[in-house]
Amino acid sequence: MEIITVVPFLTMGEAKKVLIVFAHQSSGSFNAAAKSAAVEVLAAQGCTVEVSDLYAMNFKAAATAEDIKGDVKDAEHFRYQEETRLAWEEGRLAEDITAEQTKLSEADLVIFQFPMYWFSVPAIMKGWIDRVLTCGFAFTKEKRYSQGLLKEKKAMLSFTTGSLESMFSSTGMNGDMNVTLWPIQNGILHYCGFQVLPPQVFWAPSCASPEARTAMLEGWRSRLQGLLEEKPLSFISLDCFDPKSFQLTPDVQEKHASQEFGLTVGIHLGKPLPPQNQMKAGC
Amino acid sequence: MEIITVVPFLTMGEAKKVLIVFAHQSSGSFNAAAKSAAVEVLAAQGCTVEVSDLYAMNFKAAATAEDIKGDVKDAEHFRYQEETRLAWEEGRLAEDITAEQTKLSEADLVIFQFPMYWFSVPAIMKGWIDRVLTCGFAFTKEKRYSQGLLKEKKAMLSFTTGSLESMFSSTGMNGDMNVTLWPIQNGILHYCGFQVLPPQVFWAPSCASPEARTAMLEGWRSRLQGLLEEKPLSFISLDCFDPKSFQLTPDVQEKHASQEFGLTVGIHLGKPLPPQNQMKAGC
Repeated sequence: MEIITVVPFLTMGEAKKVLIVFAHQSSGSFNAAAKSAAVEVLAAQGCTVEVSDLYAMNFKAAATAEDIKGDVKDAEHFRYQEETRLAWEEGRLAEDITAEQTKLSEADLVIFQFPMYWFSVPAIMKGWIDRVLTCGFAFTKEKRYSQGLLKEKKAMLSFTTGSLESMFSSTGMNGDMNVTLWPIQNGILHYCGFQVLPPQVFWAPSCASPEARTAMLEGWRSRLQGLLEEKPLSFISLDCFDPKSFQLTPDVQEKHASQEFGLTVGIHLGKPLPPQNQMKAGC
Repeated sequence: MEIITVVPFLTMGEAKKVLIVFAHQSSGSFNAAAKSAAVEVLAAQGCTVEVSDLYAMNFKAAATAEDIKGDVKDAEHFRYQEETRLAWEEGRLAEDITAEQTKLSEADLVIFQFPMYWFSVPAIMKGWIDRVLTCGFAFTKEKRYSQGLLKEKKAMLSFTTGSLESMFSSTGMNGDMNVTLWPIQNGILHYCGFQVLPPQVFWAPSCASPEARTAMLEGWRSRLQGLLEEKPLSFISLDCFDPKSFQLTPDVQEKHASQEFGLTVGIHLGKPLPPQNQMKAGC
């Protein structure tokens, strides 16, 4: 352990910790191969890599009162966010949540590795999101988006699709992938403050030849070499919003009025969406 | 039972069946009140209303091999969609999935009632979506979107937010609600063919006065009176896409070239999004 952390200190400046939240049922899957590639390449760089293998852990997905040890504040009008915020403050969250929060606290980078299910993450991974990113721990009403409590950390989505890339365009049957990613990357990751690295999308590996699948994994391995130095996607700083109305301030709107595209996919000001905004840094 | 179906037959033409997929932990919640209002108003119209109360049912969220009775086809390379498609064909899906599919088969309208968690449905409801909308039962590669296997049915989202409506605009901190809804309404509901009714959004009831909450519920009760006759949201017919490339056909693109807005939120052709496309019919 000491060797792993000391060697990269000399060569890279600092050993990083990576948490991979992994959701596939099978160790023989392409997703498992992508996860293993990340473990291997990042560990070879001196990173400490931890994997939360959600199906193997039989991770509880549903947000229930059982997530709180001891009595809840108001059983009759049970409100999950409020109750878990209190439980977090008082150290009364369920052990499985606390364990994930500990891993997350220590991580510099979190990679979510999953097959896209219904244009989103699988339910078991949504359960990790719903239960682990507790109010008070990951965000508060004041500390969210660019001020989110996890703003020193990076996060990214790495996922497989069932459809080809061309189907996820603004003229394709499934529509623009940037739109599909916005609620997840902005509404979950950036909401907690994460610096969101561009997603790693493996387009329809199940339709690809063995050679093409190998090439996809090689591309991922190559990207992983420099992943920790990558620039994140662009979101809007909390400073740009009026703290009372939560609207873009008039001067920001005015400054942007002559621009061709909106600011982001969701905060588009009625303009065309900035192309590749949720897919590439600097867009 | 006979009276219930005969009376509306005389007054409304046909007794409708409604399934409410409900995800809140507490019977004292605003969501529970919204669900109860729907049950009451729709039953008074002669509808048969069934409720799947997911937390009360302790509904399994994770998509696993246990969802299949008997042996899976390929345990080493387990692929959930493929394995459950086969199991559905052979009548080997788990009982809880089959029970929901039976309810869904009989329903004319499905209402998803939930508190928005992380810009999406709660994990337990995502589990219902992942597990119940089986390939072969809800869609196939050929029969999806406007040709989806559930195209004779209607569906809608009815949900509470934690944030005010103004925050979910194209200049607000959370971004355009139309973008947030697109992956769910297009990628899940419309994908299966459902005619998607405009969502019922209860904006931040937890921040509202008791009077305002009552008014929200009254608005919902009033809408429910005519819900079954409402026009659905606009999506794009499968005919508009080339069946091989899954791209909008050149003539559709050409016809739309001079238009100010894109066709839908996701299939926007690089134009500004059609305002309220995922919130109101005819937009």
